[in-house]
Amino acid sequence: MYSVNVRDHFMIAHSFRGEAFGPAQRLHGATYVVDVEFRRAALDVDGMVVDIARATDVLRSVLGELNLRNLDDEPAFEGRNTTTEFMARVIFDRIASRSAAGELGPHAGGLASLRVCLHESHVAWAAYEGPMPALDPR
Amino acid sequence: MYSVNVRDHFMIAHSFRGEAFGPAQRLHGATYVVDVEFRRAALDVDGMVVDIARATDVLRSVLGELNLRNLDDEPAFEGRNTTTEFMARVIFDRIASRSAAGELGPHAGGLASLRVCLHESHVAWAAYEGPMPALDPR
Amino acid sequence: MYSVNVRDHFMIAHSFRGEAFGPAQRLHGATYVVDVEFRRAALDVDGMVVDIARATDVLRSVLGELNLRNLDDEPAFEGRNTTTEFMARVIFDRIASRSAAGELGPHAGGLASLRVCLHESHVAWAAYEGPMPALDPR
Amino acid sequence: MYSVNVRDHFMIAHSFRGEAFGPAQRLHGATYVVDVEFRRAALDVDGMVVDIARATDVLRSVLGELNLRNLDDEPAFEGRNTTTEFMARVIFDRIASRSAAGELGPHAGGLASLRVCLHESHVAWAAYEGPMPALDPR
Amino acid sequence: MYSVNVRDHFMIAHSFRGEAFGPAQRLHGATYVVDVEFRRAALDVDGMVVDIARATDVLRSVLGELNLRNLDDEPAFEGRNTTTEFMARVIFDRIASRSAAGELGPHAGGLASLRVCLHESHVAWAAYEGPMPALDPR
Amino acid sequence: MYSVNVRDHFMIAHSFRGEAFGPAQRLHGATYVVDVEFRRAALDVDGMVVDIARATDVLRSVLGELNLRNLDDEPAFEGRNTTTEFMARVIFDRIASRSAAGELGPHAGGLASLRVCLHESHVAWAAYEGPMPALDPR
Repeated sequence: MYSVNVRDHFMIAHSFRGEAFGPAQRLHGATYVVDVEFRRAALDVDGMVVDIARATDVLRSVLGELNLRNLDDEPAFEGRNTTTEFMARVIFDRIASRSAAGELGPHAGGLASLRVCLHESHVAWAAYEGPMPALDPR
Repeated sequence: MYSVNVRDHFMIAHSFRGEAFGPAQRLHGATYVVDVEFRRAALDVDGMVVDIARATDVLRSVLGELNLRNLDDEPAFEGRNTTTEFMARVIFDRIASRSAAGELGPHAGGLASLRVCLHESHVAWAAYEGPMPALDPR
Repeated sequence: MYSVNVRDHFMIAHSFRGEAFGPAQRLHGATYVVDVEFRRAALDVDGMVVDIARATDVLRSVLGELNLRNLDDEPAFEGRNTTTEFMARVIFDRIASRSAAGELGPHAGGLASLRVCLHESHVAWAAYEGPMPALDPR
Repeated sequence: MYSVNVRDHFMIAHSFRGEAFGPAQRLHGATYVVDVEFRRAALDVDGMVVDIARATDVLRSVLGELNLRNLDDEPAFEGRNTTTEFMARVIFDRIASRSAAGELGPHAGGLASLRVCLHESHVAWAAYEGPMPALDPR
Repeated sequence: MYSVNVRDHFMIAHSFRGEAFGPAQRLHGATYVVDVEFRRAALDVDGMVVDIARATDVLRSVLGELNLRNLDDEPAFEGRNTTTEFMARVIFDRIASRSAAGELGPHAGGLASLRVCLHESHVAWAAYEGPMPALDPR
Repeated sequence: MYSVNVRDHFMIAHSFRGEAFGPAQRLHGATYVVDVEFRRAALDVDGMVVDIARATDVLRSVLGELNLRNLDDEPAFEGRNTTTEFMARVIFDRIASRSAAGELGPHAGGLASLRVCLHESHVAWAAYEGPMPALDPR
């Protein structure tokens, strides 16, 4: 299995609901340094897992929808705790969706799976990984 | 699959037995920077993989049993080489045991597996991973 | 010149005022990984620059006053942009003040200077450094 | 599953063919920081995954065949794009081959799989992983 | 003294002349991860050392003149060994020149000094630092 | 001012004397990842601060005198606490001495100063820096 990883970051405010979160129930924030790992069984004709320039652009665009915002105000996350692991899944879904829509280019056809890891500090991170949905046949 | 990772460290003295270890048969020591990755298939109702505050406390407590000691003097490791990979397994077992005893809290019920990685320098590390034992029914 | 550095982190929400900040005028947040470097010309009788356990405790306590808060609501920062470089100075002043009050212990008497560095992402950080104020004679 | 990782690096020049590579079609170069992770189900009698000194030597030797060269001039890569993911596979094959030839020593008999990861910058890396070929019976 | 640092990277081919360079006399290459630290004695009215968005843009532009090239073919470096420390100075001079031309914006007027550090691997880096030339009065 | 840095590591056992050290009075150990930064005002004729291959060899040799040992048994440190900051000075002195003896080669003549930094964990390090003694005239 081959993989290629690209990294970028975003910075947000948010708060959590539930006693388990203790003082993190207050409005606070985080920098998330994001790694996205694309995996496939065989290289394409150019010798690539994915077009790294497109992958970088797609990641920047997905993070741009979240960056420099208060996640408590985002309708998409209403009623949810935007934990690091939850946000890893959000970014996974958005990248998978853009890949299915062709934004990663023709190289992305053979992608098998994706792993999205969000580093929230030098001592904590969270990730979500799963199989890549098939390219949208439309 | 979701995962959450917490990091801490401990510092020990030890020596190895066996020609394969060369000069590491002498009494020496190491700093181990420890990553513990908790994995589960779905988030709990709070949107968590594990209560990160409890996970951090459990890790600190487990490492506290080893920290600032000479492992050659620990009865638990008598007759064993306390290699980095061996110690990764020791810490895996101790965290799994505490999880089974309920120390990670009710959030830990759905944990699927655990990976413990010990960084011994900027150029070497070792890990042990395996399924999480079930919660102790007592 | 000798130096000793300890690291910890805090997570906050804030916003900036001024066109130069562009979209960072919106409420957002950051994780700051903080390095504090203590410097002195000669080691004390124990062979230390500073009691590292006390230094770690003082840093944790100073960051605890800021952690998991919205800096826009803190009276201490009213009318100021809490940029990374500004916060580096805030933390410098608070550690220097605690050192002057004796919280770093008798080892801290010979400290010459201090550098506080806040890492806001994998690609950006800011710092403030300056001489250490003398121990409070009271 | 246990694993042990060793790290080293090499520095090369190369160019790519194909429109997908854009300006990387020009002759340029890279530093690759290489992680090789050896995996096995159980520790050997010494408590090791692999003899780390031999693993380090084998990695240095494999990278020495590539280091400080222009990959465009290497007959082994003729007609291929030496992308980061392609080079991860090359190094995987060469280490697997040396292991099969006995260069990792008797400890290497139980190795299950191998992962080779090449970091090309602070924001991008690529890897290849797969099962370890059996020891050569000759 | 305050400082702000931004990071980016570039990838080049080159070779060295002189016996001291040994096998690095062959055509090879490097990834340079570049840190640029801007320093000033006091913050400006916005609470900034430098406009970090402009600093990031200027760094990207300066590295864009070097990225994905063979430095042996660059007339600017004819007859020179493009060592890491030499390239740190080149980038220092180019950023200082752009700052003097006003590209860092009005915030840059108070900059006292600059440090440019090029990381060539996980075990080696080189830097150049010096006072910032005055703003061009034209 | 130019600088070049090389990195290596060593692993030791030791213990401390004095109440200020708390549980670190017990025999324990550490991995020290060592950075040595060589500084000079101008590059030599080859465009170098120091011959990086020789610098790497000298560092490895100096660390080899300490590696895989119990520092409590070393006559050179009798009656001293081998704190991280103390060991930074020891390594500074040994590299300076070897430089004075010509081991860094003719390139080392212009070296102005040296900084030795020992990373003992992901959250703590210590350093010693000072001017480089003149080349031994013998």
